[in-house]
This record gives sequence, C-alpha cells and structure tokens, in this order.
Amino acid sequence: MPRLLLNADMGESFGSWVMGLDHEVMPHVDLANVACGFHASDPDVMRRTVRLAREHDVTVGAHPAYPDLVGFGRRSLACSAEEIENLVLYQLGALAGVARAEGLEVGYVKPHGALYNDMARDPGILAAVMRAILAFDARLPLMVMATRDPSGFRALADEHGVTLWFEAFADRAYDGEGRLVSRREPGAVHHDPAVIVDQARRIAAGLPITTRDGSELVLAADTLCVHGDNPESIAAVKAIREALDRLEQPS
Amino acid sequence: MPRLLLNADMGESFGSWVMGLDHEVMPHVDLANVACGFHASDPDVMRRTVRLAREHDVTVGAHPAYPDLVGFGRRSLACSAEEIENLVLYQLGALAGVARAEGLEVGYVKPHGALYNDMARDPGILAAVMRAILAFDARLPLMVMATRDPSGFRALADEHGVTLWFEAFADRAYDGEGRLVSRREPGAVHHDPAVIVDQARRIAAGLPITTRDGSELVLAADTLCVHGDNPESIAAVKAIREALDRLEQPS
Amino acid sequence: MPRLLLNADMGESFGSWVMGLDHEVMPHVDLANVACGFHASDPDVMRRTVRLAREHDVTVGAHPAYPDLVGFGRRSLACSAEEIENLVLYQLGALAGVARAEGLEVGYVKPHGALYNDMARDPGILAAVMRAILAFDARLPLMVMATRDPSGFRALADEHGVTLWFEAFADRAYDGEGRLVSRREPGAVHHDPAVIVDQARRIAAGLPITTRDGSELVLAADTLCVHGDNPESIAAVKAIREALDRLEQPS
Amino acid sequence: MPRLLLNADMGESFGSWVMGLDHEVMPHVDLANVACGFHASDPDVMRRTVRLAREHDVTVGAHPAYPDLVGFGRRSLACSAEEIENLVLYQLGALAGVARAEGLEVGYVKPHGALYNDMARDPGILAAVMRAILAFDARLPLMVMATRDPSGFRALADEHGVTLWFEAFADRAYDGEGRLVSRREPGAVHHDPAVIVDQARRIAAGLPITTRDGSELVLAADTLCVHGDNPESIAAVKAIREALDRLEQPS
Repeated sequence: MPRLLLNADMGESFGSWVMGLDHEVMPHVDLANVACGFHASDPDVMRRTVRLAREHDVTVGAHPAYPDLVGFGRRSLACSAEEIENLVLYQLGALAGVARAEGLEVGYVKPHGALYNDMARDPGILAAVMRAILAFDARLPLMVMATRDPSGFRALADEHGVTLWFEAFADRAYDGEGRLVSRREPGAVHHDPAVIVDQARRIAAGLPITTRDGSELVLAADTLCVHGDNPESIAAVKAIREALDRLEQPS
Repeated sequence: MPRLLLNADMGESFGSWVMGLDHEVMPHVDLANVACGFHASDPDVMRRTVRLAREHDVTVGAHPAYPDLVGFGRRSLACSAEEIENLVLYQLGALAGVARAEGLEVGYVKPHGALYNDMARDPGILAAVMRAILAFDARLPLMVMATRDPSGFRALADEHGVTLWFEAFADRAYDGEGRLVSRREPGAVHHDPAVIVDQARRIAAGLPITTRDGSELVLAADTLCVHGDNPESIAAVKAIREALDRLEQPS
Repeated sequence: MPRLLLNADMGESFGSWVMGLDHEVMPHVDLANVACGFHASDPDVMRRTVRLAREHDVTVGAHPAYPDLVGFGRRSLACSAEEIENLVLYQLGALAGVARAEGLEVGYVKPHGALYNDMARDPGILAAVMRAILAFDARLPLMVMATRDPSGFRALADEHGVTLWFEAFADRAYDGEGRLVSRREPGAVHHDPAVIVDQARRIAAGLPITTRDGSELVLAADTLCVHGDNPESIAAVKAIREALDRLEQPS
Repeated sequence: MPRLLLNADMGESFGSWVMGLDHEVMPHVDLANVACGFHASDPDVMRRTVRLAREHDVTVGAHPAYPDLVGFGRRSLACSAEEIENLVLYQLGALAGVARAEGLEVGYVKPHGALYNDMARDPGILAAVMRAILAFDARLPLMVMATRDPSGFRALADEHGVTLWFEAFADRAYDGEGRLVSRREPGAVHHDPAVIVDQARRIAAGLPITTRDGSELVLAADTLCVHGDNPESIAAVKAIREALDRLEQPS
C-alpha cells in the first residue's frame, strides 16, 4: 500500500497580513499547497513559503484560485472555461517561476476553495483545469476530492491523460455519497483528536469509515488534507503523522 | 554587424479594455514585450498575445512592472530590492506558464515603465532584476537603455553574468549624455517619418545621431523600440522595417 | 405622461484605458450611470465624468458592481447579502464623495452587469441593494429592468420604501415574458436605426412593442438605456432624443 | 488646556485576514482612524469597524492611503497631486457612505503610512490632501505630525482654510527637530510602560520631553497616536488613558 501523503494549504499570508502557522506545520507534511497570489499570497510570501518547503524537503504544489483576494477565493466567480484554463496556467507559471529561484519545481496542482468545489460539480471547469495542467506539464497530478464514486473524475482524467490524486479528510464527517458534510451542519467537523486520528488511520489502511447516515464508506485516497491554522490543528497533524508512520512501519 | 531587432510593447489590453494595435504591429517586429498582469494584461490577453507572437515567429519577452494597474506601471513605487526580485520572478514565471501553452519560451526580459527607469538610476534595483533573471533562467538577456556611456550597466551585468540588450529609440530626441529628452520638453518626440527612419538607419549602421545640444552620439544598440499605438506609429514601424531590411541586404 | 429619461453607462475608462465616447453621448442623455471603481473607473475618471455631467446638467447615478475589474463586473460572484449591501454602500459613498467636489449629489442607483442581473432573479440580493440605498439616502431611486410583470420588484420596493425607476431598451428584442432576448441568440440586438427609434417611441408613448414570439408587450418604463460605445450608438442616441423631444412637444 | 485625544488605527483587517485588536482598543480611545480599502480594510470590515466605534462613542476618521494593499500603504507611490486629491476624496466618500449606515459621519482625516509621510515633506501633496478635504467637508480637521516647528503646516492650512490636529507619539523617541527617530535606529521605540506613560503625560501637560540628542522639546499636540496591535500595546493604551484622565481631573 502506498504511503498516504499529508497535504496542507500554505503561504496564505498576504502582504502585512499573516495567516497560518506554516513554520509549525511544514515539518510534518509531504505536500505544501502554495497560494499563487489570486486568493492569497504575494511574490514575497510565495518565495518564503517555497524556501520553507525546500528546507523541510516538502513538495510544493500550485494552489490556484479565482481572482478574489477579499473573498479569499471562497466565492464562485462565473468564469468561462477559457478564463479558468488561462488563470490556472498563469498561477502555475508564477509559482514555478518563484520556485525555480529556490531550486524547486511545482509537483502537483490543487485548485483552491470555490474553484476546487466548482471543478467537482462542473466537468467543463474540471476539463479547463486539466487543459491548463497538460499545457504546462502533463506529468503534474491534479488533486481532487475522494468520494464514494470517483468514476466521473477518472473518466475525464483518462480522456485528458491527467493523473489524479484523491484527497480525503480526517477531521470532517462524510455523508452517504462520500461527500463532506457541510460546515453549516452540526457534527460536520471532528474536534476529538482520537476520532481524527482514527479516521486518518482507517483511510490510510483502506478501511471503511462510518458516514453520518451510518453507512460504511471506503475512500481510495492518495493524500489527506491537514490544517495549520492554530495550535489544535498543529497537534492533530502531529498525531496523524505519528499514527501513519507507525502504520507504515513493518511490524 | 548583427541585425538591429525591433521590439514593441504588446498585450497591454486588460479585461474589456483594448490598448494597442497588436495585430498590425506584430508582423513587423522581432520581439514582443508582453505585459504580465501587473501594469496591464491578464491571463487571457497574455494567451492571445503569445499565440499571435507564435503565428508571426516573434520572440516573446517578459515585460514586468510594479503592481499598479491604475497607473499603468508608470509611477515609481518604493519597493525593496527583495520585493522587486520576487515580483519580477513572479511575472516572468506567469508569462512562461502561459507561453508554454503555446509552445513558446520567454526569450528575454524588459522591465516596464517606472521599473525600467528606476532600474537605470538605482543599481540596487538593477541588481534585483538581474538576480530574478539569474534565478529564473541565466540565459535570458535583459533589455536596458542604450546611452552614451553604458559602463555602469555593463559592470553590474558582468558581475552577475547577465547578458544585456541595449535599446535605442528612432522617434525620440537624445540629450548630450545619450538620455532621452523628456516628453515634457518640446522636440522630445519625432513625428516626421523621414526623421524617424533616418535615425533608425543611423543607429543600425553604427553612425552618429545628432543630440539636442548639437553633439554627435553613437548608440551601440541591439534593438530599437517601436510602437503599435495608432496608425501613424504602425506606418513608422513598417518604414523602419523596410529601411533596415534594405540596409541588411548585401548590395 | 412623464418624460422618458435617457440613461447611459459612463465613466467606464480605467487608468490609461479608454472606453466609451462619454463626451459625445453626455449632451444627449438625462442620466449618467457612473462606474464606481469596482468593475471600471478610478477616482480620476470618476472626477472627470462627474464634471462632464455637471457641464451638461446631467444627473449622476451610482453604477455599483461586483469587485471584478478584469471581468468588467459581468461575472456573477457568489457574495453574501451582507457583502452586497456593504459593497453597494461603499461605492455609493465613493461616488458621492467625488461628486461633492463638483457640487453634485448622487441622484439614483443602477447596479451594473452581473449584479443587475442577479438582483433581478434573487430577492435576497435585491433586498440587500435596497438596504444599502435606505442606509445611504432613502430618496434615491433604484433602477431595475422593466418587464411584463413588475409586481415582484414592486412588492419588495414597497416593503422597503424604495422608489423604483423601470428601465427599457430600444435596441433589444424582448421575449414573451418581457425579458431581453439573450445576446447569444439571433435577432437579440436591433441594428436598424428606424427599428430602434420606433421601439423608443412606442415605449415612451405607452404603446405595445412586438416580442420575439409575436405577442404584444407594454413596458411601463421611466427610462431608456442608451449606449455611447461607438459612432453608430451615438447616432442612435441622437435619433432617439430627437424622436422623444418631438413626442413631448405639444402639437 | 483642552483634552489630549487618543487616536488609533483601526479596521485594518482585510477579507479573511485579521489585524489589530480593535475590540480591545476601541473602549479606550477617542478617535478611530478607519482604513478605507486602499491599504487595508474592505466594505465589510469598514462597516464592522464603524459600528464598533459607534458602540463606544468614538469619532471615526478617514485613514486614506495610496492604492497598495500588498504593501499596506507603506511604500511611496509617485502620484500626481490630482491623483492624490481624487483618491483621498474617493476614500473619504466611501467611508462616509459606510458610516452613514451606522448613523455616523466622518469626523476628521488622517492620511496613512507613506501618504502621511509624503504629505509632511511635499507641500504639493499636502495641498492636494487639503483640497480633497475642502471639497468634501471643509470642517474636517486634518491630522498631521506635531514637530518642533509646525509653521510650514500652519501656513498651508491657513491658506486653504483647513483645521489641523497635531499628533504626537508617547512610545517613540524624537530627534532635535522634533521628528520621530527612525525605527531602524536603536532606541527609536519605547517599550518601558513607565517611560511611555511619562511621555504621554508630559505632552498632555505641555511639558518638554527630552530628545535623543538631549535637548528639550515641547510638542503642541491635539492628539496622541496609540496602537492596538498586541496585548502590550493595549496595556499601554489603558495606562495612558488612566494617566491622562487623572491629569484632567480637578485636584
């Protein structure tokens, strides 16, 4: 079984505004989703983030978004497919340019916020993101949400020749279809570290987790999204990391 | 004698706003200075501009600027050297990303507007631009203003190992030091096509031009900046192109 | 019968980019919808536009939009009602500040582009715009699209105590419900000046126009939207103005 | 002796990014310098900030800046006087619009960051700010730095008919001319609460403070700038407030 990689959003500071405990979470993850200046970050923040990733031997991925700093890329913007293709290309290139100054290459692509969600529900948007990746570097995996039935994602990815990395969450409840329970609903977010670590371990081992409606759900995931927002989330990342490391050690 | 290349600013439209007659000037130039989204352009405009350059076999160069859309990058912004290095890297990378989708690479760097001017008067800024180029691709030439005494530029370029391309103007008057006469002064801009073509021909042939104070000035130039703003400037570009082509033909 | 006012979008230049023939259309309209910096315009363009309106005794209205310069405010952005209320307030205030320097007050509000359309289909957005108007100056009319059945608009306006100005188009085809035929469909835009002037005259006189499906449509309109984009549209504005002036003169 | 008012920069959050402990500092100040969206803040942050000021009976002032979110308005931007006049007007109006929704009016103007500094050294910029104030509301005081010799400020203010409010700092060292010692120099910022409170008390009482070069300096100040950045600065504000309150009480 391949190792379940930990990914976290990074470099989401902007100018004088600080967001995220990047220095504390970086040592414990495999993949840094680096904001590219459209929803957060700026050239200086990107440079510092890439440098930090290099110091911890973490792979940097592009985290492109709709152009909406004030809304942090969380608001859908009705872009055309062509606009999406080009804004992903622009952000991918910008991060690659900054990364090159630290001797790194972009290793994958994870769209951010509303673009990530819109891509999951609209194949036209998903295809636009894939075209951007193909044009930039066809080897770059695209990170998408792991769900009960990933066949839609897979079909489009096969058609385009794009590699997918499926992403799961250890601290979120899932519904019967394998979608995240909305944060607006009670119980959507797990806060008990034991629950979080258990869900991480189950996903890593290919074991089922229990959905909100009581059904079992096996998520075929390549990576687990973790957070570096606050001390609690940092503690959770460390606990997940340790649990996964134990899982991977031969007994 | 190497050929004097013609360069023009391109891709300076922004969203719904159109600027420049790119389709009319592109067939006649060698180098397209492509705006990278900070003073003008956006990912869609960049894509179209790069595609147009490819169709006419024109080399695309990055035209990075201070982040100032409303001021079109013409207002100095008191950035630190580090900020300048990173914003040039970001813009270089962004253009490279978009260019890759059209099968092109960025071929050189020409800072825009206030950044171009600030770089010429402040070695700290010039060095920051050079560091960005070295970090991105050390082979990329940096375009700077040809003046009577380019030794300052050359010394810093040699120190950094960066290639310079010196740029001259056929439609502008020069002062005794080999600097452009300010547009605020009378006679700063040549409007007579015969004068413009003659100045282009002299620069291409390594012959002296006459400065405002009556002295002779030889500008060692690699490229001539031309404009695609309006029908008159397009006519000038064509006339310059024809004159230079005749010059280059063996008699 | 009250006079049918002519309104046009103005002040949609941005920095160095020019859009619209404001100087040519301003003498012929009653109402100038002035962009407020979110989809177009900047403080200098706003100042010049307001000054031009004052010189021609034209009422200035706020033309607030989603924050999307690159998309010209034409792309829906999934804002909350609170965000919309506040961004309308901000833009209204900004224009009022600039207008005050020319001795003018804002006379009405016409949301722009995607916000205008979203407001027409989503009562939550419409109510948010109305709350902004009430908070700023309850006397300001809100311009909305005239349709066959304006009862939805009227009910919400009555509830909030906001005055509505209904707007019709002389150069656009209507469907049976009294909505504009999409520009993507053939025949959506009238180009024949005689057709445009006839539609303007019918709307002004309270006479029915013929919809795309052949039915008759009476639009109760307070104002007609005209355009100053190009020489053809300027000619149409003048022709409409003359036709309406003749209509208003006692025989 | 009139009361020495305490002012603090507020509303400097932006979208999802939080800056400043506004809720903790607001109860202790008289004047809230509210960012207007050009260096920080957005319509929602402005609304919340104005509401908080109203709840604590604090006067809101406009805190206009150069358009530079990523640089937080701390980098000089080479604007023309006309551009500065209009961008101040725009920001003043925008804040006034938002304030009106909370039943408040803008009470004064304090330019931010680089604009504040540039205004102090360039009479053309100072005059532009004054013209904006006159055009908007001639009664609004303009806050400027108290120095040993305020005659330059006073002359221009008298010429324009603008009221000045002089501002001093309790936590900063002054040089012999009555200017702030640069933060880059040692000893520029006082950290000892006793020193800060003593300097505040001396300024409030019209007593001299000791400058870095050992000379005495009397600053005629109307207001003292305090900070709400962190718990230490909040503690300093409270201590200053108590000290000034004791000073003002009749013995």
